[in-house]
Amino acid sequence: MLNVKTPEEVKEIINKSFPSENMPGSFRSETVGAAHALGRVLGEDVVARDNVPGFNRSTVDGYAVLASDTHGSSESIPALLRLAGEVQMGESAGLRLISGACVIVSTGGEVPEGADAVVIHEFTEDYGNSMIGICKPAASGSNIIFYNDDTSKGDIVLSSGKKLSAHDIGILSALGYSEVVVRKKPVAGVISTGDELVPVSDAPKSGQVRDVNTPMLLAALYHYGAEGKDFGIIKDDEEAIRSAMLSAVESCDIVLISGGSSAGLRDMTADIIGSEGELLLHGIAMKPGKPTILGKVGNKPVFGLPGHPVAAYMVTELFIRPLIANIMGATIKNKSATAKLSEAISSNHGREEYIPVKVDNITATAIPVKGKSGLISGLADIDGYICIPRDCEGLPKGSTVTVYYL
Amino acid sequence: MLNVKTPEEVKEIINKSFPSENMPGSFRSETVGAAHALGRVLGEDVVARDNVPGFNRSTVDGYAVLASDTHGSSESIPALLRLAGEVQMGESAGLRLISGACVIVSTGGEVPEGADAVVIHEFTEDYGNSMIGICKPAASGSNIIFYNDDTSKGDIVLSSGKKLSAHDIGILSALGYSEVVVRKKPVAGVISTGDELVPVSDAPKSGQVRDVNTPMLLAALYHYGAEGKDFGIIKDDEEAIRSAMLSAVESCDIVLISGGSSAGLRDMTADIIGSEGELLLHGIAMKPGKPTILGKVGNKPVFGLPGHPVAAYMVTELFIRPLIANIMGATIKNKSATAKLSEAISSNHGREEYIPVKVDNITATAIPVKGKSGLISGLADIDGYICIPRDCEGLPKGSTVTVYYL
Repeated sequence: MLNVKTPEEVKEIINKSFPSENMPGSFRSETVGAAHALGRVLGEDVVARDNVPGFNRSTVDGYAVLASDTHGSSESIPALLRLAGEVQMGESAGLRLISGACVIVSTGGEVPEGADAVVIHEFTEDYGNSMIGICKPAASGSNIIFYNDDTSKGDIVLSSGKKLSAHDIGILSALGYSEVVVRKKPVAGVISTGDELVPVSDAPKSGQVRDVNTPMLLAALYHYGAEGKDFGIIKDDEEAIRSAMLSAVESCDIVLISGGSSAGLRDMTADIIGSEGELLLHGIAMKPGKPTILGKVGNKPVFGLPGHPVAAYMVTELFIRPLIANIMGATIKNKSATAKLSEAISSNHGREEYIPVKVDNITATAIPVKGKSGLISGLADIDGYICIPRDCEGLPKGSTVTVYYL
Repeated sequence: MLNVKTPEEVKEIINKSFPSENMPGSFRSETVGAAHALGRVLGEDVVARDNVPGFNRSTVDGYAVLASDTHGSSESIPALLRLAGEVQMGESAGLRLISGACVIVSTGGEVPEGADAVVIHEFTEDYGNSMIGICKPAASGSNIIFYNDDTSKGDIVLSSGKKLSAHDIGILSALGYSEVVVRKKPVAGVISTGDELVPVSDAPKSGQVRDVNTPMLLAALYHYGAEGKDFGIIKDDEEAIRSAMLSAVESCDIVLISGGSSAGLRDMTADIIGSEGELLLHGIAMKPGKPTILGKVGNKPVFGLPGHPVAAYMVTELFIRPLIANIMGATIKNKSATAKLSEAISSNHGREEYIPVKVDNITATAIPVKGKSGLISGLADIDGYICIPRDCEGLPKGSTVTVYYL
């Protein structure tokens, strides 16, 4: 009955059914102040508009010289140079240095034309009367950042799709970008279904549980760079779910219907998706996350997520996170690490299994966090997850595993 | 002249001079909606107010039974049970199951009192006339999450100081926390000094450079969970710097004075800190980042950061990030990974050296990003950094290194 696919097949279905270039919400951009661009995705290549720095800069405090004037100099036979002045910080050097002369320059100051090296103070001696002794030969280019060492005008310094870090904001600033074009955040609608669900602020009666998925998924979506839109808790009623779904499809780029733990409700969600659009899959051969549905309604992806929070979270991390990145044209690079398993794990479910782990950085050990399916408290301390392949019956203690950080 | 310390000594000085319990801004808390708590630091332990779930929940669709009624059953000799009803989702089971009877229950539904197992549909047969055959013995407890399996009332589920992730928001929701007590964000003042600096939006003339550090440090502070406060660009003038510093000390928990690349300006900043408070260090034996100053003014930390953006960034990451975490009482756990060096690195500076790297996840290789000191464009692609110890003359290609992710 279930049209169960492997996680790899699911990724292919998603990429084939929702190619970025066809998604209604793809690649929309907006301009924001660079100060508010942290974590946003670049909407176009950032090109150097000028050479950076715009002049030859000293990297030390010392004397700008012609390197050739210093050749053969030593402590005992210093090269004698005439002091021709001092470069003021923030001002043009305003002179052309000629052989036999030197000028005082500070770190970050302009090295005058003609000069091709800076000698630091400790290798010089001031004899008074504007005579400076250089006690060590300087190589041409030493202690200078040349006017286009950092970037040359026209260089692509940051590529479209990059998620901006604090140092990227530094790069934008160096290039004179006080504003930057970033991708608009895709809008993801979240619908929670289930007669047993009550809002977080309510006290559940017997048989009821609080709606964990809505706040958790909204937070995860925000973390992935999307804007979550809350469609509330919907009862197990076909027309109510249909109406919420159509409203979410109308105003969002992607829709997450969570809940429907029972087989009947899963079928109802699948039927609604099928009648309003196309059902693409019904079941993923993974643990947790098997009862996942995916369909296409109005050219937009509609996910039916498991009701169990841990399963819903894992499916969102594995499939919806990359889809959101695709809509933005974002290049995401997961942080991962190699670690040794702290204990043996058995797995013989015929399904790819995703196991949450804590990581001990000191010993590079991955500690599996176990617990009955559906418990959420076990997630409190996790750092990431490991994946046990479908055909693997388990891993012995001490196995080398890849931890994918969350 | 410089009172140079090793990075380890600097960390000790910071911990000794600014213990969280003495910092004026430490441990201040505020209450926020759980929906806005992502990335915030918990201000108190989160305690389970109830058992979760509050009732015994089925993890499958099937029949709730007394396990003892099913013992000895098989396909050929099923145990015959009388169907006593169906548990509605979100409602109390409302009955006590007795031997010889069973009830229909859906995933997530309440298992009635008396029942101690749930048998999934595929191991049962419906003979009509309310007679159900159970074809496989069930162990007591099977397919049930018991009423306090997830958390028991009074359990500490999340500890004060934890930075909240999306799944933590899920945990808070499961426990009924729609609001949560988090640490107030420490306020960090950023002052950029230097006659050569112009705002990012200005076109620098010869000898001038754009102020990279202010926007970059404000973004980094935000990323670390602090609130950055911009005190603008201050000229190389003792009274102007003094006045900006005192104003920042007055209204912030921590002050970052960046710039002062030249020795003269560094000394000026050190003198101002010394005259208004206590100078704790002048120079760190690390590369980049040597010309770093730290003082205490009005019981608050005042950093004099190098003018070079890469150096300022690295010092902020290594020393100011943990200090901000301390002020909040936050437990930070850095993400790190083991990788092989893609090429040999030489290092003979007698200083701990921090080298930015890109990481190739597929091959677990760390690729050093090199470039002259002070260039920022090289940071465009980095994922983290490695540390070469002080007494190490370099590392051969293929060495195993620890990458600290940024």
